[in-house]
Parts: sequence; C-alpha cells; structure tokens
Amino acid sequence: MSNIKVGIIGGAGYTGGELLRILVNHQKVDIAFVHSNSNAGNLISDVHTDLLGDTDITFTDQLSQDIDVLFLCVGHGDARKFLEANSFNDNIKIIDLSQDFRLKAKSLKPKAKSDLENQSSALGLQPSAFIYGLPELNKEAIKTAQNIANPGCFATCLQLALLPLAKAGLLKSEVHITATTGSTGAGQKPTTTSHFSWRSNNLSVYKAFEHQHLNEIGESLLQLQADFDKEINFIPYRGAFSRGIMASSYIVCDLSLEEAEKLYQDFYADAPFTHISKENIDLKQVVNTNKCLIHLEKHGNKLMILSVIDNLLKGASGQAVQNMNLMFGLDEREGLRLKAVYF
Amino acid sequence: MSNIKVGIIGGAGYTGGELLRILVNHQKVDIAFVHSNSNAGNLISDVHTDLLGDTDITFTDQLSQDIDVLFLCVGHGDARKFLEANSFNDNIKIIDLSQDFRLKAKSLKPKAKSDLENQSSALGLQPSAFIYGLPELNKEAIKTAQNIANPGCFATCLQLALLPLAKAGLLKSEVHITATTGSTGAGQKPTTTSHFSWRSNNLSVYKAFEHQHLNEIGESLLQLQADFDKEINFIPYRGAFSRGIMASSYIVCDLSLEEAEKLYQDFYADAPFTHISKENIDLKQVVNTNKCLIHLEKHGNKLMILSVIDNLLKGASGQAVQNMNLMFGLDEREGLRLKAVYF
Amino acid sequence: MSNIKVGIIGGAGYTGGELLRILVNHQKVDIAFVHSNSNAGNLISDVHTDLLGDTDITFTDQLSQDIDVLFLCVGHGDARKFLEANSFNDNIKIIDLSQDFRLKAKSLKPKAKSDLENQSSALGLQPSAFIYGLPELNKEAIKTAQNIANPGCFATCLQLALLPLAKAGLLKSEVHITATTGSTGAGQKPTTTSHFSWRSNNLSVYKAFEHQHLNEIGESLLQLQADFDKEINFIPYRGAFSRGIMASSYIVCDLSLEEAEKLYQDFYADAPFTHISKENIDLKQVVNTNKCLIHLEKHGNKLMILSVIDNLLKGASGQAVQNMNLMFGLDEREGLRLKAVYF
Amino acid sequence: MSNIKVGIIGGAGYTGGELLRILVNHQKVDIAFVHSNSNAGNLISDVHTDLLGDTDITFTDQLSQDIDVLFLCVGHGDARKFLEANSFNDNIKIIDLSQDFRLKAKSLKPKAKSDLENQSSALGLQPSAFIYGLPELNKEAIKTAQNIANPGCFATCLQLALLPLAKAGLLKSEVHITATTGSTGAGQKPTTTSHFSWRSNNLSVYKAFEHQHLNEIGESLLQLQADFDKEINFIPYRGAFSRGIMASSYIVCDLSLEEAEKLYQDFYADAPFTHISKENIDLKQVVNTNKCLIHLEKHGNKLMILSVIDNLLKGASGQAVQNMNLMFGLDEREGLRLKAVYF
Repeated sequence: MSNIKVGIIGGAGYTGGELLRILVNHQKVDIAFVHSNSNAGNLISDVHTDLLGDTDITFTDQLSQDIDVLFLCVGHGDARKFLEANSFNDNIKIIDLSQDFRLKAKSLKPKAKSDLENQSSALGLQPSAFIYGLPELNKEAIKTAQNIANPGCFATCLQLALLPLAKAGLLKSEVHITATTGSTGAGQKPTTTSHFSWRSNNLSVYKAFEHQHLNEIGESLLQLQADFDKEINFIPYRGAFSRGIMASSYIVCDLSLEEAEKLYQDFYADAPFTHISKENIDLKQVVNTNKCLIHLEKHGNKLMILSVIDNLLKGASGQAVQNMNLMFGLDEREGLRLKAVYF
Repeated sequence: MSNIKVGIIGGAGYTGGELLRILVNHQKVDIAFVHSNSNAGNLISDVHTDLLGDTDITFTDQLSQDIDVLFLCVGHGDARKFLEANSFNDNIKIIDLSQDFRLKAKSLKPKAKSDLENQSSALGLQPSAFIYGLPELNKEAIKTAQNIANPGCFATCLQLALLPLAKAGLLKSEVHITATTGSTGAGQKPTTTSHFSWRSNNLSVYKAFEHQHLNEIGESLLQLQADFDKEINFIPYRGAFSRGIMASSYIVCDLSLEEAEKLYQDFYADAPFTHISKENIDLKQVVNTNKCLIHLEKHGNKLMILSVIDNLLKGASGQAVQNMNLMFGLDEREGLRLKAVYF
Repeated sequence: MSNIKVGIIGGAGYTGGELLRILVNHQKVDIAFVHSNSNAGNLISDVHTDLLGDTDITFTDQLSQDIDVLFLCVGHGDARKFLEANSFNDNIKIIDLSQDFRLKAKSLKPKAKSDLENQSSALGLQPSAFIYGLPELNKEAIKTAQNIANPGCFATCLQLALLPLAKAGLLKSEVHITATTGSTGAGQKPTTTSHFSWRSNNLSVYKAFEHQHLNEIGESLLQLQADFDKEINFIPYRGAFSRGIMASSYIVCDLSLEEAEKLYQDFYADAPFTHISKENIDLKQVVNTNKCLIHLEKHGNKLMILSVIDNLLKGASGQAVQNMNLMFGLDEREGLRLKAVYF
Repeated sequence: MSNIKVGIIGGAGYTGGELLRILVNHQKVDIAFVHSNSNAGNLISDVHTDLLGDTDITFTDQLSQDIDVLFLCVGHGDARKFLEANSFNDNIKIIDLSQDFRLKAKSLKPKAKSDLENQSSALGLQPSAFIYGLPELNKEAIKTAQNIANPGCFATCLQLALLPLAKAGLLKSEVHITATTGSTGAGQKPTTTSHFSWRSNNLSVYKAFEHQHLNEIGESLLQLQADFDKEINFIPYRGAFSRGIMASSYIVCDLSLEEAEKLYQDFYADAPFTHISKENIDLKQVVNTNKCLIHLEKHGNKLMILSVIDNLLKGASGQAVQNMNLMFGLDEREGLRLKAVYF
C-alpha cells in the first residue's frame, strides 16, 4: 500500500505543530502540504523550531486535492468556516481537531438544526457526517468514517474515566470531577494567564461547572447509558505545567474495587493506549505518550477514578493520528509509540 | 512592655526555619534560644542559608526556662515525647506546630483517653489544656490560652472555606473538596515524591478520602454546627510548586451568591488575614503572606468556595506567630506583614 | 518626623507593583498617590491582586505637588518624556527606575549633550542632577541627592561582583561573565519568550556581549579604577524562574582566596544588604530580599565571583526604597526587612 | 538480519530507564534481559512507571551469554567492578555508560597503568579496548569497535561545540564555557540539591573549573589539535529543569561568522543528529531528542558557540543506542527519531 497523503490546515498552531511532530516520523504517511497563510514560504522548522533537522518542508498558502486525508488544526469556529469556503473531493477524509462538529446534539435543536442544514446543504456536509473520534467509544464507526470530529482534551480524559461505568449502567449518582490542565491547553497566543511570571508555581480555577466540554461528555455518556440524568460537577484547574491533564472523579458505586477494576479492564481490553494501573498514578507517566492511565480506589461507598492523558497527544493530535490509522486500516499505534521523557 | 522571649525546639526543620524567617524581623520578640541537637553550635544561617546577613544566632542543645513562650517545631509524635521528657515553668506558654494535641476527640475515646491522662498526669498536661489555634474560630480562647495546638495546613485552608456555613447551620449536604499542596507540605527530608525530577511538572493524588486532617476539620465544624453529620469527601493533590494550598469545595446550598458573600464577609469581619474576593483568585496571591483569600461562586444549587493559603505561613508558622501575638496582647499582624513576592 | 509622602508614576507595571508591595508596609511612608492613566479609579489590588487586604488605595490620573518624593516606574524613554511634560516643585526628590538618566557618559558626547542640555534647560533638569543610585558605590552622594537614577538589575548584580576589585585597581584582565535572569526582568507584557509553555524548563541566551547594562557597569568601574580598559564579556541568559539574577564572573587575579575575601568584606563593611558567603550560594537565598550575596573561589590564577540578587528588589524597587531611605535620613533597611520565602 | 539481542545491567537507574524507553520501540532490537539485583522479579514498569502498557518485561538477577550487546548502566566505578566479576563471550559487544573506561590518558600514568593492566590481564580487557563513543568524532572506529566508552553528558555538549575548531587548529586562546544541566544529570537518588523545594526556581554553580568531564574534553581536543595547550575555563550550573544541557562557549577567533558557520556545517555534514542553526536556539528545541543544535555568533574578536543537548538522550542513553546502531550496521537514527514534546 502506498503511503497516506496528508494535508494540514493551520499548521502553525499548537495542535498543528504537535501533528507535525508525530507525522514527520510516521512511516506510512507523506505530508503533501502544510497550509498557513501567514507563514507561506517559511520552513516548518522556522515556526516549530524543535523540528530543525527533522524536516525541510515549508508552509504553503496553496491547497491541493491530491491528498487522502485533511487535518483541520484551526481555532474553534474556523473549521466550519474553512469547509464552507473550500470544497474537497469526496474521497478525501477530514479529521477536524476543533469543536465545530463534535456535538450531534446541536443538530437536534430546531433553530440550530436548520442553520446547520442550510450551511451543510451548501457544502454537502451533513452534521451527522462527522463521527466523534474517540476510539475507545466508536472504534468501528471510525474505521469507516468519512469525517472525524476529534474530541476535546478534557472531554477525552473524563470520558475515559466514566465510559465503563456508563456502559454498565452504573452512573446512578451525581459525578464529581476535578481536573487540571497544562498551559498548552490554552493555545499559543500569549495571554495574562499564560505569562510565565504569573503561571509558574501557580494554580487557578476557571469555568467551574460550566466548561464547554461537558456537552461532549454528556453526549457520550448518554450514548452508553440512555437513562443517565444526573449532574456532572466539573471544576477545571490551570496547572503550572505545559503538558497533561489529570482528573479525579468519583461517584457513589456499589461495586467492590475488584469488580470495578474488572469492569474497566474488560471495557478497555481492545484499547492499545488505555490501561488500568493497580498502583497510584501520576501525570508524567503519560506525558509525551498517546496513553491514558486509569487508577481506581474505593473509599466507603465512593468509587474514585483517576485518569491522566497528554492533552496535546491523546487529547488532540495523537488521537487524531490514531483516528487516521483506524480510518486507513493501519495499526492504531502506528507513529504513536514515541516514548522517552517521563522527566 | 519588654519583648517576648521565645524558645524554639526543632529549629532546623521547615516549620522551624519558617518561624525564624518571621521572628528575626518581629519587633516585639527576642529569640532566646533555637534548639537543635544535631546542629548545636552551628549558625542558624548555616542551615537556613537565606538568613545569612539577617541573624547571627547559633543553634544550641541547651534549654532555658528564661522564656515567655516555647514553639515546638518537631515532627508528629515528637512534640508529646518532648513535653514528657522536659518540663517547663508554669508561666511559659507553649505553641505546638505538630498534630499531637490538636484533637480533643482523642481524649474521648476510652482507651486513648486513659493513655493520654496517664501521660498528662505525669506531665501536668491535660489534653484539654491545648486550645486549637485557629484565630478565625477561637480568637478569644487563644488570647487567654496557656497552650496552643497549631492547626494543620490543609485543615486551615479547608476550615476557613467552611466555617461560615457551619456557623449558619448550612452544611446540610455532603461536602466535596479537592485541594493541592506544595512540596514544602511534605517536609524537608528528600523522598521519591519530593525529587525534583519526579515532582516538577507533575501532579498526583495521595490519601484520597483519608487525609488525617479530616479529623481536625470535623471537630471544628461540629463546634459550630452540632448536627453536622454528612460526609466530607476530600481529595488531596501534590502540586509542582513549593508553597501554597488551593482548595475548591462545594455543597448544595440555598443561599444566593450575594447572601453567601455577606455571610462570609460578616463571619470574617474581624479577621485581619482572611478576605473575600469578588474576583476569581489564584494561589500566588497569598504565597508569602499570612492571608487566606476566599472566592465564592454559585452554580445551579451548588455553592463553590475557593480558598488559598501559604502552607508554611497561615498553614503553619505564620499562624503560630499570629497565635503568639494574640496570647501576648499584640496586634495579630505584628511581624506578619511581610509582602513582596507574588511572582 | 512626619512620614515621607510618596507619589508613584506608572504604578500598574512590574516595578510599580513591587514598589507598592514594599511601601504598603513601610512605617515611615504615606502613599500620596499612585498614578496610572489606564487604571484611574481602580483599586491598586484590582491590578496587583496579591495586595487584596493590604491596601484600599486606588489609582489616580491626577498629579499632586504635595509629596516629598516621586518614583518613576515607567518604561525606558518614558521617564524623560514624563519629566519634560510635567514639572514638580524643587523640593520634591525624584527616583527614576528607568535607564533614562543612568549614563553620565551620554552628556559627554557633544551632540547628545547639547540635546540633553536643551531639554534640561527647559526643565530645570541637568543630566548631572541625577546621582547613580547604587548605595554600595555612592552612598554619601545619594544621601544628599535631589534626583536618583536607579541602577538596572543586571548592572546591580554585576557591579556588586566587581566593584571591590576595581577599587583596588585589580581589574587587569578581561572579565568573563555569565548571568541568568528571571522572567520578571522582561516586564509584564505577554510575549513569545514569556509564554509559560515556552519558558518553563527552558533556557536561552539573548543580547550576548551586547547587553545595554554594560554601559552602566563600565562607568562605575571607571569611577573606581580609571585605567580599566579591558573587555567585559557578558552572556545574559533567560532562566525558567520568575525572580532573581545569578552571575558568575571571573578574572585573572593574583590575590589568594583569603585576600580576596578580605577585600570584599572590607569593601562591603558598611553595606547592610551585601554579604560575603564563605559557603557556596544559590539563587533562592536572596529571592524576596533586598540582599546581594557574594561567594568567591580561586581556581589556578582565576578568581571566580558568584553574585545573586532579586531583580525586582535589589535590582529595582527595593534598591529604589533603599535610596529613598538614605535620601531622607532613615535606616537603609527600613521597610526592606521582608523575609520568609526561600522556597 | 535477525534482531540484536540486548542485555542491560543496572536497568533500574536513570540511564537504564532511559535506555529502556528507547529500546522498547526499537524495531531491530530484542531485549534479552534487564538485570537488577534489587528488583529481580518485578516488572520494568513497576520501577519505570511510564512504561506501563509498553512492555511486560521483568527484571532478573540472572545473566545470559545469549546476547549480542551488553549495556552497562551502573554507577561510576561499578562498571569496572562488574566486568572484573563477570566474564562474557568474546562476541558480545559492550557499551559502558559510566566514566570508567573513557580516559585513555589514565593508562599512561605509570602507577595507574600497571593497575589497569593487572586488572585487564585478568579480564582480557585492555584499556585501549574501549573506543570513545562520540560518533561525530570517532564514527569509523565505533563501527568496528568491540567495546564502547559512552561519553559524559557535559562532555558531549561541550565537545560538539568545540571539535570543528580543534579540527581546524583554531583553538588558540583560552576557552570560556558556562553550561547548565537538568536535575536528571545528578541521578535518581534523592539529595538536598535534588529536593524539589530547593531546586525549583533555583540556580547554583558546582565544581567550577574542576568538573571531571574536562578530562574527556581535553583528550578529544588533543586528538584533533595536538598542540592545544590553553586552559578550558568551565563553570557548570544546576538548573531548575529535569532534562537538558545548554552551553555557551567562546574563544578568540579570526574567522568571520560565515566562515565559522561553514566550518561547522562541513564538520557535521555526515552527522544526522547535530545541526547548525542560523537562528538563536533554546534548550527545549532538543529536549526528548538525540540531537545537538549549535548556534554561532561573532562579537568583536570572539566567536560564541551555543550548544544544546538532552542529557539523558544524546548525553547518555540515546548516544549509547546511536553507538549500537553503528556497531551493528544500522542507520544511526534507528529507534531514535522519537519527537513530540518541545513543551
């Protein structure tokens, strides 16, 4: 089989850069073009300077139809706009890393639905044409998908913590979640809360109880446990590190620890990147990997679930490549074995 | 009034060092002796090297009765042992920074009680002779106390988040708390989880639902709301910073945000170090201060309380000095105005 | 004596904030006004949020003549412009934290001189009217100065490392210096190199051999050793910390270690903040202090001088207050004893 | 060709763990055994917990002769002892990551020489049997080597900065070097200077002018420029990051910047991991890579050379694998393309 020809839109941002850090070493991929209006003509490694010596590719402001898959690494809202403004051949698959096509629920709201259909009829894009790209939830659908809506970083970490319980119909109480994210989760634009002087050694809460990823999570839980109707209490923190998300979640649960561990082991039996750790876990175990580690503890009637991912890999570009691998019949892990780091 | 003569036991550790960092500039205090067996004869500034130029005091292995107050900065368990092995004149006040005398409840358990009484009768120390030194809770009792059990760091941060609700009898649901502490909370002995290579950029949970400070917190809440019988779910995190604790707590609460803010404002009206912030808060606002900042948000039927302290100051040695100030009729803030830092 | 009445221009920036963090607890100072056009009417603590609970002062866009001293905490170039646009009574002393009046040498260049004189005649400001405010160099002149040009942060750290040698006429070889500064040295405007994702765990060189502070250093060395004509090789680094500067300097030197230590001890005998450490030193020993620590080592024919300061305190606002104390006949240390921190 | 069978001694330490992080994904390698007395029977991933899900190998206390290459990842001094106590078949190649066999010069000192020869005759190990494994210096010799002494981390970073000049006979003045290393350079044993509370946000100098790697560097420079007789002034710093070394070096040099850049480009034309950057560089560009980036600047008569490596990869285990690849006829980059990270 010849290599997969890849086009990338928005290659100068964080998720675009991370995608390039994976794909330059992916042995089944040829990078056809990396699109950036502002950087056209510049070397990739002028922007993502850690790639000096790894690639001589330059950014372009030209699009090409001679690709097999297109990654959209643009901001929220801009993916939809891009697809409205540019059309691609039917045989080109699309993997969108923004939140623009993640929510099927959107299309169910009358007003929003007609808006979306109007847009999509002009584009030949149906909202339902995007499969939610969480392999642990939708692997079979991803394999045959034309278009993928790649999950959010918090959404990935939290769903992987809760899906086995939802599958077993065990989400019967409110869910209590605290999760802390690294600075790369907030994008590369310098801001007050990404200023080193402020963020180093600091900690803060934002969007408590109202983070936009709650909608993604809710949809996935309902997909597995249709009667789930409890609140998800979610407090996101900004941490003083660059990469990673750690979440602690707990619910009331009758399972013993052993039963819970078995439930999770079984649910993730076919997931090459998601593992249950009997020992306590820490964030750096997964930094620079596409893995999710999960640790369970039982305290009284509460089941606590710790989950950790790298927000740029499993939480964004790594998962996007995992989806691509599935869509093109490759081993899910192709190009994603990376390793080293931990420190 | 002549200056307060202070003796310090365990001056080579973290809380002892922090106490010295405060007292060398406290204008109403003379440091009579700093006791350390292992460092006797060495300069304070040989161990606490940041004090070079601030003091020429040396450690001693001799005790003196010519003091007004004795600070115990030794490990948990060692404070009791020290007081069993050494007796001090009745007029000498004691401020213990360990957990040895924090729990009145201990003395209520039949077996433990008799143990304690046997010990204390030998010493002339009654368990009840120690006042729990949280000024926001026990200011009047502290002023006349002979002995103070200085609160734990997590316990301080969490009680300040919850006491106004308990006072109003509003703790009617389970309490959900996550709190993250800096590395100085774990002491100065090098360990695996305090190794820089491991801890930098990392995050981990420990003692979930089972932290020993839950007992302190429970006692204080019951002191204000006798019918409190709900669970306190507490997940402590180790953060990648040296100083500080940030806690997010929430309960079901009928109060509006305005009512809740007023409740907290009123409760802390006389507290010079505890303030309500209408704006969102971050950890570094209180690092290197003896302050506690509290921020409230209402989401649906949940009231969220964010609270931040410096674990070595308000969470340990700063609060100990605040207690000393109260015991000797000084302004609570004497020697504790520090400032600078934030970055 | 009544308190010193202080006005502050540019109170919303880093050095302005740091000045406020000192002055709110300075017992001989009353803050008359804190000027900021963009923040007029806002609380100081809305901008410098760590001051919540410490002060209720608000920013103003009004200037007042009812002050004893004016601190200029504005950007380089803006101090001169401000003084051109605004005149103050002759009895008001000025302490400028920018680099605008640091170099006497400027006025020696014919063209620049006439420019400056034209400006200054309009203002009543002579270039020579500004005393270079390094107390270890110019203490007596500072005491009677009308106006102070407060030294740069690198310049302070490096001069304190070299002045005793210059005084003794011992700068006979090239000087080799490497120094690393924290992120607060670059101001509070978010930039690429102050982005947390980039700067954390990172290290980089900038302005190698060409840093603008070399001019300040050169002038001071010449003041003490008129025949100094060797190169100063200076490589500045950006470090992954917020506060502090550490410099390692070395020259060829015939002195023994003991002779060198005595030279430095004698030179700094009257300096309350600058101390010689016989033991090796580290940066954090001086963070959050107005101190400079110096450690000497002799290796072969080379004398190595390590020096550390806090860039915002001894390197900026702390030194400005030290100068104010001297100008008004106070103890140099007044308001600058701070302490705590180290971790 | 069948896969290379690898044995590892000292697999529980930092360099052993890093080697495993590389080799678990090296497609031409089978790990035959990972030796550790203290961890025999435990999973690799119980110690190197980031490898959970990547490997099911366990530690063993048994040695096997059925290997092609043996990596020694033990402490300095212990490699020699191990080879004295254990013999291996002649066809087994050895790559030693300690400093025990790096210095040929040792064998030239009469007393030391006889000692070594006595030892080596008993072992069949000649001191000269170890090739210094810096591929940029000794690539052809490495390809046919039986045994490799893997270079030190500082030594690698500094030699790569200076070798092109030595090759051209241009080291005619003293060399001035400052370099900063991450905490993993000091090993995994918890110590005072690796304690997070101390090291975070800190900076310190150690072994100034006397670091043991100076000997390695000196030997290599003499190999290329036999008349080099100037001093190398080297100040090593401990930085507040886990991974990486950044060095700034300068000498008096007549070359123009363009000539110098051409000299370096030519020297490293065949080096797949060492690259010259026309733009300024920062440490994180090479973290988690086996690369060395070099940036040159000319200031007056001084040529400054900045060089950066990852101390655990190019400075230790990555370079060891690069050497193995060369010894077994593989592409140097096999298993070392890693990437991701930068943040």
